[in-house]
Amino acid sequence: MTTRESLDDLYIFSGQSNIPLVQNVVDYLGVPLRPTLYDRFSNDNLWIQLGESVRGKDVYIVQSLTVPVQDHLLQMLMMLDIAKTGDADRVTAVIPYYSYGRSDKKDAPRICITARLVADLITQAGADRIITMGLHSDQVHGFFTTPLDHLTSFPVLSAYFKQKDLSDTILVSPDVGYAKHSSKLARLLDLPLAIGTKFRVADTDVVIDDILGGRYARRAIVIDDEIATGGTMVRVCERLHESYGIEEFILACTHGLFSGNAVERMNNMENLTEVVTTDTVLAPHAYENIKKLHVETIAPVLGEAIRCNHLGQSVGDLFAFWSETAQA
Amino acid sequence: MTTRESLDDLYIFSGQSNIPLVQNVVDYLGVPLRPTLYDRFSNDNLWIQLGESVRGKDVYIVQSLTVPVQDHLLQMLMMLDIAKTGDADRVTAVIPYYSYGRSDKKDAPRICITARLVADLITQAGADRIITMGLHSDQVHGFFTTPLDHLTSFPVLSAYFKQKDLSDTILVSPDVGYAKHSSKLARLLDLPLAIGTKFRVADTDVVIDDILGGRYARRAIVIDDEIATGGTMVRVCERLHESYGIEEFILACTHGLFSGNAVERMNNMENLTEVVTTDTVLAPHAYENIKKLHVETIAPVLGEAIRCNHLGQSVGDLFAFWSETAQA
Amino acid sequence: MTTRESLDDLYIFSGQSNIPLVQNVVDYLGVPLRPTLYDRFSNDNLWIQLGESVRGKDVYIVQSLTVPVQDHLLQMLMMLDIAKTGDADRVTAVIPYYSYGRSDKKDAPRICITARLVADLITQAGADRIITMGLHSDQVHGFFTTPLDHLTSFPVLSAYFKQKDLSDTILVSPDVGYAKHSSKLARLLDLPLAIGTKFRVADTDVVIDDILGGRYARRAIVIDDEIATGGTMVRVCERLHESYGIEEFILACTHGLFSGNAVERMNNMENLTEVVTTDTVLAPHAYENIKKLHVETIAPVLGEAIRCNHLGQSVGDLFAFWSETAQA
Amino acid sequence: MTTRESLDDLYIFSGQSNIPLVQNVVDYLGVPLRPTLYDRFSNDNLWIQLGESVRGKDVYIVQSLTVPVQDHLLQMLMMLDIAKTGDADRVTAVIPYYSYGRSDKKDAPRICITARLVADLITQAGADRIITMGLHSDQVHGFFTTPLDHLTSFPVLSAYFKQKDLSDTILVSPDVGYAKHSSKLARLLDLPLAIGTKFRVADTDVVIDDILGGRYARRAIVIDDEIATGGTMVRVCERLHESYGIEEFILACTHGLFSGNAVERMNNMENLTEVVTTDTVLAPHAYENIKKLHVETIAPVLGEAIRCNHLGQSVGDLFAFWSETAQA
Amino acid sequence: MTTRESLDDLYIFSGQSNIPLVQNVVDYLGVPLRPTLYDRFSNDNLWIQLGESVRGKDVYIVQSLTVPVQDHLLQMLMMLDIAKTGDADRVTAVIPYYSYGRSDKKDAPRICITARLVADLITQAGADRIITMGLHSDQVHGFFTTPLDHLTSFPVLSAYFKQKDLSDTILVSPDVGYAKHSSKLARLLDLPLAIGTKFRVADTDVVIDDILGGRYARRAIVIDDEIATGGTMVRVCERLHESYGIEEFILACTHGLFSGNAVERMNNMENLTEVVTTDTVLAPHAYENIKKLHVETIAPVLGEAIRCNHLGQSVGDLFAFWSETAQA
Amino acid sequence: MTTRESLDDLYIFSGQSNIPLVQNVVDYLGVPLRPTLYDRFSNDNLWIQLGESVRGKDVYIVQSLTVPVQDHLLQMLMMLDIAKTGDADRVTAVIPYYSYGRSDKKDAPRICITARLVADLITQAGADRIITMGLHSDQVHGFFTTPLDHLTSFPVLSAYFKQKDLSDTILVSPDVGYAKHSSKLARLLDLPLAIGTKFRVADTDVVIDDILGGRYARRAIVIDDEIATGGTMVRVCERLHESYGIEEFILACTHGLFSGNAVERMNNMENLTEVVTTDTVLAPHAYENIKKLHVETIAPVLGEAIRCNHLGQSVGDLFAFWSETAQA
Repeated sequence: MTTRESLDDLYIFSGQSNIPLVQNVVDYLGVPLRPTLYDRFSNDNLWIQLGESVRGKDVYIVQSLTVPVQDHLLQMLMMLDIAKTGDADRVTAVIPYYSYGRSDKKDAPRICITARLVADLITQAGADRIITMGLHSDQVHGFFTTPLDHLTSFPVLSAYFKQKDLSDTILVSPDVGYAKHSSKLARLLDLPLAIGTKFRVADTDVVIDDILGGRYARRAIVIDDEIATGGTMVRVCERLHESYGIEEFILACTHGLFSGNAVERMNNMENLTEVVTTDTVLAPHAYENIKKLHVETIAPVLGEAIRCNHLGQSVGDLFAFWSETAQA
Repeated sequence: MTTRESLDDLYIFSGQSNIPLVQNVVDYLGVPLRPTLYDRFSNDNLWIQLGESVRGKDVYIVQSLTVPVQDHLLQMLMMLDIAKTGDADRVTAVIPYYSYGRSDKKDAPRICITARLVADLITQAGADRIITMGLHSDQVHGFFTTPLDHLTSFPVLSAYFKQKDLSDTILVSPDVGYAKHSSKLARLLDLPLAIGTKFRVADTDVVIDDILGGRYARRAIVIDDEIATGGTMVRVCERLHESYGIEEFILACTHGLFSGNAVERMNNMENLTEVVTTDTVLAPHAYENIKKLHVETIAPVLGEAIRCNHLGQSVGDLFAFWSETAQA
Repeated sequence: MTTRESLDDLYIFSGQSNIPLVQNVVDYLGVPLRPTLYDRFSNDNLWIQLGESVRGKDVYIVQSLTVPVQDHLLQMLMMLDIAKTGDADRVTAVIPYYSYGRSDKKDAPRICITARLVADLITQAGADRIITMGLHSDQVHGFFTTPLDHLTSFPVLSAYFKQKDLSDTILVSPDVGYAKHSSKLARLLDLPLAIGTKFRVADTDVVIDDILGGRYARRAIVIDDEIATGGTMVRVCERLHESYGIEEFILACTHGLFSGNAVERMNNMENLTEVVTTDTVLAPHAYENIKKLHVETIAPVLGEAIRCNHLGQSVGDLFAFWSETAQA
Repeated sequence: MTTRESLDDLYIFSGQSNIPLVQNVVDYLGVPLRPTLYDRFSNDNLWIQLGESVRGKDVYIVQSLTVPVQDHLLQMLMMLDIAKTGDADRVTAVIPYYSYGRSDKKDAPRICITARLVADLITQAGADRIITMGLHSDQVHGFFTTPLDHLTSFPVLSAYFKQKDLSDTILVSPDVGYAKHSSKLARLLDLPLAIGTKFRVADTDVVIDDILGGRYARRAIVIDDEIATGGTMVRVCERLHESYGIEEFILACTHGLFSGNAVERMNNMENLTEVVTTDTVLAPHAYENIKKLHVETIAPVLGEAIRCNHLGQSVGDLFAFWSETAQA
Repeated sequence: MTTRESLDDLYIFSGQSNIPLVQNVVDYLGVPLRPTLYDRFSNDNLWIQLGESVRGKDVYIVQSLTVPVQDHLLQMLMMLDIAKTGDADRVTAVIPYYSYGRSDKKDAPRICITARLVADLITQAGADRIITMGLHSDQVHGFFTTPLDHLTSFPVLSAYFKQKDLSDTILVSPDVGYAKHSSKLARLLDLPLAIGTKFRVADTDVVIDDILGGRYARRAIVIDDEIATGGTMVRVCERLHESYGIEEFILACTHGLFSGNAVERMNNMENLTEVVTTDTVLAPHAYENIKKLHVETIAPVLGEAIRCNHLGQSVGDLFAFWSETAQA
Repeated sequence: MTTRESLDDLYIFSGQSNIPLVQNVVDYLGVPLRPTLYDRFSNDNLWIQLGESVRGKDVYIVQSLTVPVQDHLLQMLMMLDIAKTGDADRVTAVIPYYSYGRSDKKDAPRICITARLVADLITQAGADRIITMGLHSDQVHGFFTTPLDHLTSFPVLSAYFKQKDLSDTILVSPDVGYAKHSSKLARLLDLPLAIGTKFRVADTDVVIDDILGGRYARRAIVIDDEIATGGTMVRVCERLHESYGIEEFILACTHGLFSGNAVERMNNMENLTEVVTTDTVLAPHAYENIKKLHVETIAPVLGEAIRCNHLGQSVGDLFAFWSETAQA
């Protein structure tokens, strides 16, 4: 690859996980969404065909690892393989939500560091590079040996929150594991930070032991990388209310899955002011049913990252327009 | 690995696709089925834990790639990774039904030779060796770089058919692609062979052009590697009936999926005497509802292959007891 | 690689197997054949030198795996290595005749799937991509992990046959394994298809059991991927003559080796009208001695494939000019 | 490898970083320390020779990545290479202190995830497996693709502390990044946890913003994975003293480097009761000069891990004797 | 592999290059030569079948790279692949004469370091380890990444020469490149060394500029790693005769190819006392026709190396019996 | 990469080993030296940051493996990794002095062919290509699988010597291992060659047995690839003086390390006229203290090699300007 001067050879294909987001990305860039045909054999084998020749092109395969995760994963692997063996110049996997980033360590014997396994599968299938967002931990970056752009939604989220009244507000990370990331948003918004010392008993059954740095405030923004069933969020808010008398809650996350009975949970929270998320995960059931949901799009972030990659420009420089203090 | 003398270090774990078959295999061998814990996170990520330490063991992970194929595939990849990184002496993937064997060539532009891609994923995840059965084509063997035992159900099927009246019977392959394999069964049963020249218009919409070698006979056994929706089988029988007046049909296959409306189709065929399959695929809906279904187990075949592998003995020699003429 | 706009950086080198064909290819493209020096040490080691610097060039190494196959193979591997370590931008192995494609499965215990082994050697030696023609089976494509263009001679052969009288003619594949390919030519020429159910007893000793779909016709075109000793062809014709009274035979193949006593066999066949082949294999002894031989060149097919590869254009689109119905 | 029954084939070699620890390990196991010859050429190239043939042996190369880190690293890589190419049956790198575990993420642009790079170098050089202790973050485990036993010093440290008066004591993690690990020791010792929200301005210049969960107590144990210059520790204690009036401090860590002016710092702390560390790092200057230093050996932990690995037994089971509640 | 205690699992197969030598090796070891079937298809493709199951065995494939080198090379690669994919426990390539060791550097632009390429091919094909003898330069060892035993014929040759009168004799290396090796034999035999400064103009056309260290002596032993056409040897002797009056010559080498007109050359040399070689290369035409030829067998050296490898014993220790001063 | 037309995308970064040389190279090319930040943590871990984005650039990392060799090596590996994972188009390691080239064979049991190990580490870390100079032996080239330009200082050295009086002068290689290389310089300068048969007893304790080709001359130029402690050089000169009465000595080498007491040794040699070296190694202590030292820069050689690499031009052609007879 040499420095390119136009977007002519930039070919973007989308898996089936989040076509509206990809449409926004290509619209932002002013390039067409290249066609893809999807099918499934009667034995449940997937079949997929890229609708245009990729020979010599700079190909981007966009797929979020959302429900059904395994189908979307294999679909992406097949698309990467097709692009690679179809003689693309370069193949980039764009993964707005890398679900398996959460499986990043052996916290029990004889389990799988699936974040690493899936990283290896993606490389094996043909990805030369990765663009992703909001990884569960920074170390997941190192599970990939290819170049990887680890984007953040924080400039988008902070731009949204800065339009709001943030007086007498604290930022709360529900988990010490996410505390380091949360502290970055705390600095962007100039808010004090509190941290839940959560001990997860089972996947959806959560007990919050304590809130380190907890204090009274009128309002709390509780931020996490993802909201799945929302159980953690609800417990943290209950604890903040009981222990410190906080009355107003905003829930925020990069990846809004809203699985299980999350919709009901959100709608039943009495002190909830707003739920803020991005569109890395396509969740129409939440968009229609969660009353106080606000969705910010990260399509321009993905679009700029793709453009910089294609043109061989520094991602860092271009991201400056998002926030002067948030360059990564 | 050196030649082992007992089955003490032989550890068999099962994915969730076909536990009854694996139970039969371990019963045949007189070894325990090692426990495995399965779970799924609220974001649809799979979680799996091998229930016993595999350090220094000779581990077999058994999984058929049946519906939901992609979940079963990733589950197997995770189990292979756990075994490998858990310091197993050797890890063998036992795949009674390798669904992606059917995607073995580029018969359209920009599609995926998924049989090769998935073979690479399995090796990448940690399989040192493969045991599988009834691959769609013999060349799929070459997609794996590891040692691979390609087992056949034909000794089991032919043993079953030899108990029957096979006078005035022809064996029919519905497809030239499967003709070479069918000819082996024809020789085992000493039956003449006919071959459908099928042109597949779409996955479930099949037109049979012609029956090469078609002739009158009282009875036809139509044999294929798998029965999915059964559409091909029905069309071949109709054609055999119309063109040659054949009145009695037995359908046979290694992999009985019976997906889509296969149950209804089988039950509606007027001249159908029997449907014979093996248990490589777990299909309880078919077992309960297809009236004339007969299922032969291939557990002893898998069991012997595993035993030979573990003890470092030739698979070929031991298979002699299945049929003197069927050594592979 | 980015899309190139001229053939300036396109460097074609030839091994010693088929220099006349390569000369035709470079003439077709209007580029020079880059010089190569060949030598052999007194201990039978090969020595080879590319005659021009390949730094930054798009290099094509053309070699057919013809007699002496092993010398030609190692020569190609050495040329690939020189190009790769000589810092070529990209290295493509162009293999008009991939002899080892025939060794594509384990049809006996403890033999080699040499088609896969040699594919791995070629990749190991430095080939980034492959262009080949008329592989023995489509699955051999999957033995290569690099991009591969699998070209076909059928547009060339069918263009030739369409100039002829094809009335009352059938197309015969001597082998069920080649039946699927033959059916494509049958459709191109709009001819009915018959298939020999050959059982190969030894490499040159063949017994034809039956002709599936055999019928009377005035003329039969017998098509195979290659003609080596021609024994199979002769037996099929004898059988077609004896069983169905066919009197006029045309033999056709992509790869005309004419090894052993093929020349004598061809010349002794009484009802033989013509032998049609291409120049993937250089066989001067056949050109001089087989009376009814007709050779079509596939140089333009290779030339176009190389041009498309070099310019980053779709091979499929350009091939349309060969035949509207034969796009691959 | 099959299950072994004695330690006859267990060969332990030591790099030059921590020979006393390795001597303790071999004494614990009752096996000899195999000889190694070290030299350095006049151009600063390292030279090393394993003093006994390793053909067919189960080899353990023990090296801590301590000052001079880069010499010790290359020395280990050379020893791994010698063992591998010397035809050892299996080669395990035992790395009591993996210094580069700290470089586990890209927290600035265009820097190196050196923890991953060095993991790849170790695998490339020939390590089949890894035994290490007290990695800076759990995710570093996933940077290695080989089997890896991640040991912990907590059973050793907690056994030591349990002999002491722990009334009115809190456990303090100086850093949210280490909070999750610290919480495990807090549970082992049944102590409340506080967490420093440290922002590291430069490598040795630290500012502690706040102590989440800070409270009055008579005594604080401040625990970190390693003590280098000790600057962080001193600041946390000052803050705990100033904000909450805590008067008595115990510093504890797995890896006691005591670099820079750490010795002076420790000796100058007025309220310091004790400094507790293990012998993963050989630090004679600290042993001689830090007045209140107590060193626990982890030789038995390494010894048991090596024994279990060699004999193919579960590490988890054997570790039970350290602490019933600390099985990992 | 663990230390083995018998030769039961030691399986030796031979390629077609030097079956008498391999027969001597198996006789020395008291094990059977396992059968191998060789064939060649009519298109010149090789076919080979190992005659016994290798599952779990410790397999040695013995092949010298002699004329026809390329056929013997591919045959060996196929045998290695069969053993590997046939689930051998371990596969060792035993290459008594590695012809391509001579192509070990780029002494001209755009040529191939074929010694490295072929080493990679051998590893790719499945060799876990290598046993070879008399490599052209010691650095070729480093072209292999697997364990490699580099055996020497010098103990065999020196044992033979020590039975002779070596008074007033000098040892001559015809080439500075081989001088370092020759100096080892000089020390074994306690003879002064002289070195030809040969400049090779072409493969068979040699000019000797000078003899460094040349002096009068009654007798000269001229030693090289191989004798191909013998041209170099003849020129060196002529020069030694002309410049220093030496009258009696013994030619010695490890690999006696005697290609081209070597037989005639040897027989025509007037002052030639003896030609001494080993049986790494099978050269019946020389055995029958060179009058003064003496052949020492290296079968016991290969046999001991194989035995030590199989039993996991140090090769160095066992080689002591060859010569107390020649341990390597 | 396609042929580039300017140096705009050429980015040169320097490790800390020889910044003055790299400054000369970038000045020669007229491009800026891109900034690099170096640091070292208190645990001796290295930290390094490339000061500009390398996305899409053609990156050259220049580092000599000089004291401290291991630090410089790891620093280079980290820089290569940063460039590769920072999405550089292509990464070239430029290694003017590859110290480990000397460890190129196993001349003792159980030692490391470190030249090969380090080559593998460099490739593993991300080098696509290598530029180096004056490798200890030509075969080291083959330890690298990437394209490698093996530059020589001989045109620079011979241009310098040709300005001098070379009458009645011999060229002396102190070692048969370096004799082949020395003979090239002998031809460039048209001088007779003599060769020391050195037996190295230990790293700095050298005994010269003999001078092959020794003769009287007025002056001797003693040439080696490197001068470390200079012990070898001094002994050779003493021997030349004692045996042949040579009175005037010039010492020359590519890599002037002048380690140990080399400065004192050089200054104490009575008959020493001059010491000539290049600047591949930065040795300020020698520049200041060795009285008769002359240093030629190889910056233009490196600069041209980088320019040719970047522009995709043949290195051989451009090197012609150094010397018509010295093209490599």
